[in-house]
Amino acid sequence: MGNNVKVYKGNVIFTKTPQEFEQLEGGYIVVEDGKVKEVAQNLPEQYKDAEVVDYGDKLIIPGFIDLHLHAPQFPNRGLGLDKELLPWLETYTFPEEAKFKDTEYAKKVYSRLVRELWKYGTTRSVVFSTIHKDSTKVLMDLFIEAGLGAYVGKVNMNRNSSPDLTEDTQESLKITEELLQEYSDKSPLVKPIITPRFVPSCTAELMKDLGDLAKKYDAPVQSHLSENRGEIEWVKELHPDSKNYADVYDKLGLFGQQPTVMAHCVHVTDDEIKLMADNGVFVAHSPESNYNLSSGIAPIRKFLEAGVNVGFATDISGGHAISMMDVIAGAMKGSKMRWVYLEEEYASLSVPEVFYLATKSAGRFFSKVGKIGSFEEGYEFDALVIDDESISDLNPRSLPERLQRFLYLGDDRNIVERFVSGKNLPEPKVY
Amino acid sequence: MGNNVKVYKGNVIFTKTPQEFEQLEGGYIVVEDGKVKEVAQNLPEQYKDAEVVDYGDKLIIPGFIDLHLHAPQFPNRGLGLDKELLPWLETYTFPEEAKFKDTEYAKKVYSRLVRELWKYGTTRSVVFSTIHKDSTKVLMDLFIEAGLGAYVGKVNMNRNSSPDLTEDTQESLKITEELLQEYSDKSPLVKPIITPRFVPSCTAELMKDLGDLAKKYDAPVQSHLSENRGEIEWVKELHPDSKNYADVYDKLGLFGQQPTVMAHCVHVTDDEIKLMADNGVFVAHSPESNYNLSSGIAPIRKFLEAGVNVGFATDISGGHAISMMDVIAGAMKGSKMRWVYLEEEYASLSVPEVFYLATKSAGRFFSKVGKIGSFEEGYEFDALVIDDESISDLNPRSLPERLQRFLYLGDDRNIVERFVSGKNLPEPKVY
Repeated sequence: MGNNVKVYKGNVIFTKTPQEFEQLEGGYIVVEDGKVKEVAQNLPEQYKDAEVVDYGDKLIIPGFIDLHLHAPQFPNRGLGLDKELLPWLETYTFPEEAKFKDTEYAKKVYSRLVRELWKYGTTRSVVFSTIHKDSTKVLMDLFIEAGLGAYVGKVNMNRNSSPDLTEDTQESLKITEELLQEYSDKSPLVKPIITPRFVPSCTAELMKDLGDLAKKYDAPVQSHLSENRGEIEWVKELHPDSKNYADVYDKLGLFGQQPTVMAHCVHVTDDEIKLMADNGVFVAHSPESNYNLSSGIAPIRKFLEAGVNVGFATDISGGHAISMMDVIAGAMKGSKMRWVYLEEEYASLSVPEVFYLATKSAGRFFSKVGKIGSFEEGYEFDALVIDDESISDLNPRSLPERLQRFLYLGDDRNIVERFVSGKNLPEPKVY
Repeated sequence: MGNNVKVYKGNVIFTKTPQEFEQLEGGYIVVEDGKVKEVAQNLPEQYKDAEVVDYGDKLIIPGFIDLHLHAPQFPNRGLGLDKELLPWLETYTFPEEAKFKDTEYAKKVYSRLVRELWKYGTTRSVVFSTIHKDSTKVLMDLFIEAGLGAYVGKVNMNRNSSPDLTEDTQESLKITEELLQEYSDKSPLVKPIITPRFVPSCTAELMKDLGDLAKKYDAPVQSHLSENRGEIEWVKELHPDSKNYADVYDKLGLFGQQPTVMAHCVHVTDDEIKLMADNGVFVAHSPESNYNLSSGIAPIRKFLEAGVNVGFATDISGGHAISMMDVIAGAMKGSKMRWVYLEEEYASLSVPEVFYLATKSAGRFFSKVGKIGSFEEGYEFDALVIDDESISDLNPRSLPERLQRFLYLGDDRNIVERFVSGKNLPEPKVY
């Protein structure tokens, strides 16, 4: 037994596959050097001298993964949701993002965001900042300080934006590269990610050079795809020679040439779905945002059947809630409405499926960082301890029922411990 | 100035019409004998000696109204939502409801439910209990003790149910009438309501006699209408001679002959909508429940344009959340998905509209009790004081923006006082 072994006891529930829960009432998780060594119903003999932390009747589950959120939009959450995507960007989003030229303001907002992610048990996230280099560094340093895992992307945009958010192409590339140099190896948990905002705000020249940077620094890529019908029409006008929206990214080396996650994918075509599957592109499914901005309901069952990687996302602040529990429940509801109104041949999502998507499936996007999102051997011990007493009832319930109820009814009050890579994280400081 | 005058100061926001908010920053609400006398930006001279309770920067809004929930399903909330209506009833609902033969169990569950309604600021509600007389009395007495307003209905069901929930017709009518006699004048806040479960569980004979009882005791009526396609087919088989589902109720005196609220109305026909408008029938729109049980999205804009009365409902436990804020946000999201996928000619719902529906519009169902759901003169002072500091940001926001954010992000922690008919209610006791 190594020196860095710790054992956690409680009601352990997680998923290896989308089909069913793994569950151990009063089970043990053996953690060595921050990674899961073993999950067992009885404490294995060789660990009998290890320190055991007993969480009693509480649940122990993998931490949540948010595959897409806009950190600077944190102040706007819950506002302006009577608009569609493009007018909402103009009215609410761009004016707020322009404020992040000021690193003091950035530190205030970002530290509050990071604390909120911690509160709601989002242990890993994939994040847009703004175009501003210094504020992006503030955000990355705050994630490092908090001990939370994140890919953080300085946004690139050099067309069709407000003047104070329109970059010079060479300057945009230069500071992107500086951040890649400075942060690629600074922390095992927090890494840079290449972040063209979306096709309408980046020229082909900028996007192509960003694709080259991604390759040069072996960095992942994030952007938006097919969120809204108006946006799709616009991309068609801007790139009349491309087969479709996804094809624009693909031709420029930004569609799975490196690990890539695309937010939304609400209205993608069958050709685009095939390309996503072939290229291993991840969908950051943001159901609450897609309802709020009148975008639609992404065809998740269709993605899964086509072999596309799927995870969930809040999309703050198109999505109002930072809680991944709300997003998971939102995804289930939306899949049912697709089934009722759009395509009876695609079944709605089950509880083990949505939990799997929110943890192990999304976790695969972090393959360069480690194995994330499960309690199988070798996975980083990213975990939440859940006290569901306040949402319990007078009847005994199974672990899957208790987890299901937590997803539908739970909030930050039910999350009593948060671990990332084996470290029990204290509440992050707010500035 | 009368003796029973109290004045409340704060950021007052409410609706007189669906089109816009009435708002007074640092305004005054003058309350006399539990009713709103006046809302004013400056304290009127004649009240200058009255006691003023100053809520500072907090919001003061009307209390929420839940037009449809099943009290005995409180223990099941957040469970079994991978099923459709009819199998869900068999598997989860009926076994739980059978337990309410035991008044001790009922008191435990119902006192927890009443406390939860209080917590989340639901000041008036329209409630199904079970078939059991004594447990129904327990529930009514708990509402009276808490000071919350409610219509509570002993459920009637004499066919197509599990054996322990199938009543003898005469016995069902007898105890329904006993409750009407005992409770019609017992409390100004809590009243009985005639409650045939839904067409499939009541014979025409039972429904007709219930319609007569409603008339005899001048009692309102609640039931379910067109929630789910399977259910609608079943009603068609049971009543082949009826024009449609609504027509079954109408012919038996249960469709607006007394004030009537019908839960769901997801798949109603144009003929049914016209009948609802003509008869003044209320829709208890339960969006979260309708998503959870794969029912659909009710056509709220269409109802409003046809002149149908609409309010919102949690439908515990088809709906998982007791929070009317969640229901209101859920209604907005659903109206947007209808607009995207089903009918571009019907605009989605705006924030003032949904707030109006949740308060003043729903409040009209309580016309026999008083004027409910607004701060206009003569309305019962049903109010919530909202401390939104925990969900605020670093920017100044208008009152409508703060209210919108509370609807999307707030929870019970943001509700710091709850008034019903002028009385500030303490936390209800749990047994």
